[in-house]
Amino acid sequence: MRAWDATTDVLVVGFGAAGASAAIGAAAAGAEVTVVERAGAPGGASAMAGGEIYLGGGTPVQKACGFEDTAEAMRAFLAAATGPGIDEERLDLYCEGSVEHFTWLADMGVPFKASFCAEPCWEPPGDDGLTYSGGENTWPFNEIAPPAPRAHVPQMSGKKPGRRSGGWKLMEHLSAQCRESGVASMLDGRVVALVSDADGAVAGAVIRRFGEELAVRATKGVVLASGGFGANPDMVALHAPQLCGQMPLGTDGDDGSSIRLGQGAGGFTRRMDAAQTAIPTVPALLYPSIAVNRFGQRFINEDTYAGRVGQAAVFHQGAKVALVMDEAIFESVPEADRWGARPTWAAGSVAELEAEMSLPTGSLQATVSLYNEHAARGCDPVFHKRPEWCRPLRPPFGAIDLSALPYAVFTLGGLVTTVDGEVVGSDGPIPGLFAAGRATSGIPAWGYVSGTSLGDATFFGRRAGRAAARRERRPAART
Amino acid sequence: MRAWDATTDVLVVGFGAAGASAAIGAAAAGAEVTVVERAGAPGGASAMAGGEIYLGGGTPVQKACGFEDTAEAMRAFLAAATGPGIDEERLDLYCEGSVEHFTWLADMGVPFKASFCAEPCWEPPGDDGLTYSGGENTWPFNEIAPPAPRAHVPQMSGKKPGRRSGGWKLMEHLSAQCRESGVASMLDGRVVALVSDADGAVAGAVIRRFGEELAVRATKGVVLASGGFGANPDMVALHAPQLCGQMPLGTDGDDGSSIRLGQGAGGFTRRMDAAQTAIPTVPALLYPSIAVNRFGQRFINEDTYAGRVGQAAVFHQGAKVALVMDEAIFESVPEADRWGARPTWAAGSVAELEAEMSLPTGSLQATVSLYNEHAARGCDPVFHKRPEWCRPLRPPFGAIDLSALPYAVFTLGGLVTTVDGEVVGSDGPIPGLFAAGRATSGIPAWGYVSGTSLGDATFFGRRAGRAAARRERRPAART
Repeated sequence: MRAWDATTDVLVVGFGAAGASAAIGAAAAGAEVTVVERAGAPGGASAMAGGEIYLGGGTPVQKACGFEDTAEAMRAFLAAATGPGIDEERLDLYCEGSVEHFTWLADMGVPFKASFCAEPCWEPPGDDGLTYSGGENTWPFNEIAPPAPRAHVPQMSGKKPGRRSGGWKLMEHLSAQCRESGVASMLDGRVVALVSDADGAVAGAVIRRFGEELAVRATKGVVLASGGFGANPDMVALHAPQLCGQMPLGTDGDDGSSIRLGQGAGGFTRRMDAAQTAIPTVPALLYPSIAVNRFGQRFINEDTYAGRVGQAAVFHQGAKVALVMDEAIFESVPEADRWGARPTWAAGSVAELEAEMSLPTGSLQATVSLYNEHAARGCDPVFHKRPEWCRPLRPPFGAIDLSALPYAVFTLGGLVTTVDGEVVGSDGPIPGLFAAGRATSGIPAWGYVSGTSLGDATFFGRRAGRAAARRERRPAART
Repeated sequence: MRAWDATTDVLVVGFGAAGASAAIGAAAAGAEVTVVERAGAPGGASAMAGGEIYLGGGTPVQKACGFEDTAEAMRAFLAAATGPGIDEERLDLYCEGSVEHFTWLADMGVPFKASFCAEPCWEPPGDDGLTYSGGENTWPFNEIAPPAPRAHVPQMSGKKPGRRSGGWKLMEHLSAQCRESGVASMLDGRVVALVSDADGAVAGAVIRRFGEELAVRATKGVVLASGGFGANPDMVALHAPQLCGQMPLGTDGDDGSSIRLGQGAGGFTRRMDAAQTAIPTVPALLYPSIAVNRFGQRFINEDTYAGRVGQAAVFHQGAKVALVMDEAIFESVPEADRWGARPTWAAGSVAELEAEMSLPTGSLQATVSLYNEHAARGCDPVFHKRPEWCRPLRPPFGAIDLSALPYAVFTLGGLVTTVDGEVVGSDGPIPGLFAAGRATSGIPAWGYVSGTSLGDATFFGRRAGRAAARRERRPAART
């Protein structure tokens, strides 16, 4: 028990997109804000992301690119794609507030170029500002809601995917805005404990920094926003064992510390096994090929969002999946764009390929035969691949063993929060404790759509910061 | 803040198999024990169960029926069938202690007839004491470990499945043993809150009974054992949305109250979306038929544990599954054993059936063609159904739409515990708080094997009761 070393109104833990948005939201509502970040600079996993931000309902960029969209269509799509188990209220707010949120991001200085990227890609290779990112224009979603592209990408040149891309640009502007808003930042600091008052309200945190421990009082609240738990092997083994052995995306900071701090204060978690699991190939190879499981069967329309194919592979096919193609498909993708992929197997006939792949006798032959029969007529009545990607496979054939490659994964489960970011425990919201971003279970329930992480991190980060700032200042108490 | 109304050493919450075993275990270790149960009699969901108890490693019943088994084989099977994400230590203890646990159950007076039921069934219709219950002798498990039947069923005559079966017999003996052990029972009482000491240790509980609230002190500990949360629609929607609309097995008492009480005291949960989801058909119809998804494909060897087929259907096929058979298969099962099932569709050819079922053109034809081609040779190289169930389907054909029928479900997720039943929170075990049975996440991780619920409820219930009884008595403190 000792005195506080410092006092702020709102203490934000983690300086990624969620934390920065919470800080800006809290500062805009008049609070004094401090962000503590364990790395030596802002950014976190957000700065390594491609930068897609899921926004719709008719943003200026959508309109300028000639796409019509409504909040209803956006909602219907997300309800289908991110379930099962969506939060109705959260999704309503997110879709109805999306155009306003675009404006807010633009006001922060985040640049979006009004140009549409139509080519199959994980993220636009150039500086286009808009693309499809969830299979909106593919089955079954094209039958559920009018499709529109909704991934808005901050414009930048000289991208280095995975290192310096649209997410980096987003964080450049959000962190600059934090500085302009008078947000104090405390880098190289780790929150090691929350401090609660006798009545259970969270009153501050203990921060370890350069070998010292500082007790920082937060008169209005603490916002936990330091990411998911993909970099914590124990938590992954306990909660999301299907990710073991795969490649966690993000930073070392994704160690689940916000989730554990929240749990320690009585916060509930949910959907802890949910994850994005990107299939280890490029869409340009995936779309025209067929993805087959260990029974030699197709299991999805290969031209849908590649993250969705990855989820289907990991969660429903035991990650035992191969990509079957022909030479024409392989050669259609320039070597530089293939991620170095080479066929694992090659053969002059499907029967031969089937044997080389150790697939059950007749299984791949039946699959290719049915696929080719329909593809010759430009259709795929079984899995509904779009006609432009339906072409019969012709010898020579090849296949890439995707089970030998790591899936890039990040976790989607986390703290249960209200739509204002309050962390929920057994007696409802825990006073003074907020969370946002991948430390929470948010817009993506079990299904994932690219752009919903930065989307809900910024959208609900703002709300969490604002809600914290609006709390009454609590009188000082000793730690 | 008021005085305690009563004092006991160990307070057990819930009088099903886990609670009864905890009570007996605690009493045997010298503690004074009280069981509080919200219903008017002991039993809970356990008394409605078929009664299979998963035991192996060479029990007297296994030996008398001529089956060899080892703890290693049992462990290898359970590791494969109940994963991903098994607890190594828990599984080791369970398998190594299984023969001793059989002896304990027999000592409790639970009768097991040394006879083996070989017919395809959810549970033995007669009074046989041993059967396969997890697909041990089916692919892929028959390649992983030497198969042995391990479901031990208490012997009883006059079974009424779902109402009065082997589980009822088990509870008859466990509750009698509680009385003989001097365990006090408080029926019609609900625990509405746990009471913690200033140091965070759980010291007792508040019980609502006949309109009054009683504060009961537990000098050694509280054991939460009042079941899962299948009967709590809010918790199901939040944590296990894929069970929405299905038929919860168990009682109204499976409202997650133990889980919520444990969470309120800081306990962690895990695997909250895991569930047993029984496919709504009888194994005798299932094994010789083929189960197909909405793409007209098979997805599993139909002769494996029917609960495993149900999990595959619900969690990997969106519960959109039909059972395709021919007239000979349908007629081979007496009407009384068919659960009243009638074919939803009937047709003279596979093409016609495919159209009636609104399956993609050619999909079911390709599936039946491949299946029949192999079945004619008595094999199934794709899904490895055992030869005795492989027979080509011949016209006339029929199919039962299983998506129109409710899956019987119960939840498998719950509190995180040590192998001694201590509930784990952010600082490790919470002093004085224990849990067992389906209030915890135990032997079945995500995969399920019939008999592992009563198996781990009784096995780890005993351990939890014993561990609670061995704690030092805490001095009295006011509530």
